[in-house]
Amino acid sequence: MKVAKFGGTSLASAAQIRKVCDIIRADAERRLVVVSAPGKRFKEDIKVTDLLIAYGEKYLADGQAEEIKQKIFQRYTEIAEELQLSREVTETLTADLQEILTAKNTADAARFIDAVKAAGEDTCAKLVAHYLRSLGEEAEYVNPLDAGLFVTDEAGNAQVLPESYERLRALRDRKGIVIFPGFFGYTKEGILVTFSRGGSDITGSILAAAVKADLYENFTDVDSVYAVNPNLVKHPKEIRVITYREMRELSYAGFTVFHEEALLPAYRAGIPVCVKNTNNPSAPGTMIVSEREASENRVSGIASDTGFCSIYVSKYLLHREIGFGRRLLQILEEEGLSYEHTPSGIDNISVILRKKDFTEAIRSRVVERIRRELQVDDVFIEDDLALVMIVGEGMRHSVGTSAKATAALAKAKVNLEMINQGSSEVSMMFGVKEVDADRAVIALYNEFFADQQQSRQAI
Amino acid sequence: MKVAKFGGTSLASAAQIRKVCDIIRADAERRLVVVSAPGKRFKEDIKVTDLLIAYGEKYLADGQAEEIKQKIFQRYTEIAEELQLSREVTETLTADLQEILTAKNTADAARFIDAVKAAGEDTCAKLVAHYLRSLGEEAEYVNPLDAGLFVTDEAGNAQVLPESYERLRALRDRKGIVIFPGFFGYTKEGILVTFSRGGSDITGSILAAAVKADLYENFTDVDSVYAVNPNLVKHPKEIRVITYREMRELSYAGFTVFHEEALLPAYRAGIPVCVKNTNNPSAPGTMIVSEREASENRVSGIASDTGFCSIYVSKYLLHREIGFGRRLLQILEEEGLSYEHTPSGIDNISVILRKKDFTEAIRSRVVERIRRELQVDDVFIEDDLALVMIVGEGMRHSVGTSAKATAALAKAKVNLEMINQGSSEVSMMFGVKEVDADRAVIALYNEFFADQQQSRQAI
Repeated sequence: MKVAKFGGTSLASAAQIRKVCDIIRADAERRLVVVSAPGKRFKEDIKVTDLLIAYGEKYLADGQAEEIKQKIFQRYTEIAEELQLSREVTETLTADLQEILTAKNTADAARFIDAVKAAGEDTCAKLVAHYLRSLGEEAEYVNPLDAGLFVTDEAGNAQVLPESYERLRALRDRKGIVIFPGFFGYTKEGILVTFSRGGSDITGSILAAAVKADLYENFTDVDSVYAVNPNLVKHPKEIRVITYREMRELSYAGFTVFHEEALLPAYRAGIPVCVKNTNNPSAPGTMIVSEREASENRVSGIASDTGFCSIYVSKYLLHREIGFGRRLLQILEEEGLSYEHTPSGIDNISVILRKKDFTEAIRSRVVERIRRELQVDDVFIEDDLALVMIVGEGMRHSVGTSAKATAALAKAKVNLEMINQGSSEVSMMFGVKEVDADRAVIALYNEFFADQQQSRQAI
Repeated sequence: MKVAKFGGTSLASAAQIRKVCDIIRADAERRLVVVSAPGKRFKEDIKVTDLLIAYGEKYLADGQAEEIKQKIFQRYTEIAEELQLSREVTETLTADLQEILTAKNTADAARFIDAVKAAGEDTCAKLVAHYLRSLGEEAEYVNPLDAGLFVTDEAGNAQVLPESYERLRALRDRKGIVIFPGFFGYTKEGILVTFSRGGSDITGSILAAAVKADLYENFTDVDSVYAVNPNLVKHPKEIRVITYREMRELSYAGFTVFHEEALLPAYRAGIPVCVKNTNNPSAPGTMIVSEREASENRVSGIASDTGFCSIYVSKYLLHREIGFGRRLLQILEEEGLSYEHTPSGIDNISVILRKKDFTEAIRSRVVERIRRELQVDDVFIEDDLALVMIVGEGMRHSVGTSAKATAALAKAKVNLEMINQGSSEVSMMFGVKEVDADRAVIALYNEFFADQQQSRQAI
């Protein structure tokens, strides 16, 4: 069987939901379907989830938020009417929604917001199930609590509990098509808790692992994952097959196809994933697999992400001090900072970290502690660093990949603040100034992809 | 004033000692002289220090080692006679030596060995002072205990105590030339302790810092420090000026001019160092300074060292685990291992360490602990790694240095296991298989030095 997950734009309107249901009906193996909440219909549109969040916050503050509520109701009513669902169905859907949105007990604000947010997916799943039945299909909405999707009690950041997999496996045996709302689960005490953003992908990945699906199809609004950000390069190369670890490294450096954690359950269970387009389902899409033949395309993609900074520390004879690196990392850990990389010279070490949690107050404290506790000769922070990555299976063992890459970057007049290659077998990482990041990505894309036919022959 | 230190080959014979004394007498500023023990006169010769160690070990084992002792006496007697020192002087020297070598109390073996080893330098210093006086110079042997060179009580690995500097400063005010034995100091309790090997360089560096010398001259048997290992490249470029940190990075990767710690006191005190040739004192030598003008030669030298290995660790979503890297390093620390570098990908990290202390038993324990305590997906060790370094001030901010380097390595068919650039401003580090190390060094030397005239114009 296949697990198919449909993203927000795939469910944004009645027309989109018709496409979704056509896709479901086109393959008898698509028996477990995970849906998001209706997303944007056009660029300036507001996603239902964002309306729900705005509603929940205003309701908590003012005790009502009628205007936003009506907008939410309108989205669902419009869709239901266009899909020609009965008035009775529409009324049931809005009544259920009304009950969640006007909860009496809002003492625990985070729980209330979680319940309100999740109503977007929940209502959408019910709606799709109704529509499929109206088309004569055997289809049922299944609630995560009934199915046994149990999670930790951390509002907005639920983690699946291991025992869920065993319970969810029973979904295999249901007759007909199961429509499952994404984005949330329940604690053992029956309290609704949402996953972090991108949570419907997580739900799909968990279900695929639980039922040991042959394939986890992830339907979105692009034909495939591209080898480079399409905002930087026109008509970039489509990726046909990519491994989990390639995908993971690209996600780290700015590829936003999946939330970082979303693929973990599918990865662990070895379930292949296919990214496909609801608006063009005949396009082959991108397969994410455990292993791939690396001979054809050594390089899969080029990615970059900004918002990094580095702490530089130097001390004469530093590297002869046993425990120096560990103590440096311990200071960061005690200050609640996670770090990304630690390139090092002989008497110096840099720690690369994301800027966002690194406030001015923490900065001066960290610098002061490093100076005092480690007795260093020098310590300072460099800002505005971007990481640019070349990702590809087998790349590491190809003599000359780094030569090609660094030559392309030099030609584009990009100065390299850092090169970090050697641990990952599938990536090479360059630190550049943020202002140089896009230029670096374009230069690398042109080097590795622009003349693909020719380089294929060369390999 | 200048502090001049003479190495073993500079003192290996009467002819060499004459050269040393000519050098001392040629510059009135050379008032503080540190000497090693007589070294090799020819390739198969044995250094006095090695004779002394062999003697000490045999004496401890057998209660006597007459044959070796006679060889040691013979070395000094020959030199003294050739220098036409009086029989009385020679007898005093050998009597002092005899007393040390036949100590009654050898209960503390390490201390006995330290005293025996140090006798090489000590006797040599006395001999040189006698010879200078025989030439009519005002010269005196000064013992480290009398001068106040106090050290920690760790046989064979003494560390200078900070208060020594203040005491040693008084050497400035001595009249005439002070001849000071290198390689050892005394604990506060008056026990002789030697430095680690290369310890005469340490003594020179400490004295230069203590008396705030204008220059620390380090006389050896080569005209200068070379940009690359002369065993790999014929007539390599001589380095005229180099900074401490360049020298430090080159020393790390196989340049054996100085013991790693030797330069620390001079570095801290900002004393320039000059490496010169006793056999060709008019050659300009190599100056080691705090800062240099980097415009002329961005790259100073190419070095490499073998004997490294790497521990590779991977775990899906590793980098989101706060404290992972710190805990990994802590395991190594608890196993008594110091590490060199930690290149990292997204879900993986490698730890590069020197193989020598990494025995089979420790290996399997470390792998087992990493697997169990960090719950990793994969962990394995790769052996036979060499580190190759390009060292040069200002190199980092030159667009294209890495492109030149990686192109040269690719052309030489050297596969890069690792690139580590970004913390040090003066070096770029490549990890290669040991079998490729020499080829990599030669390729890089040819790239950066072979056509020096032309590349100077290009800059």
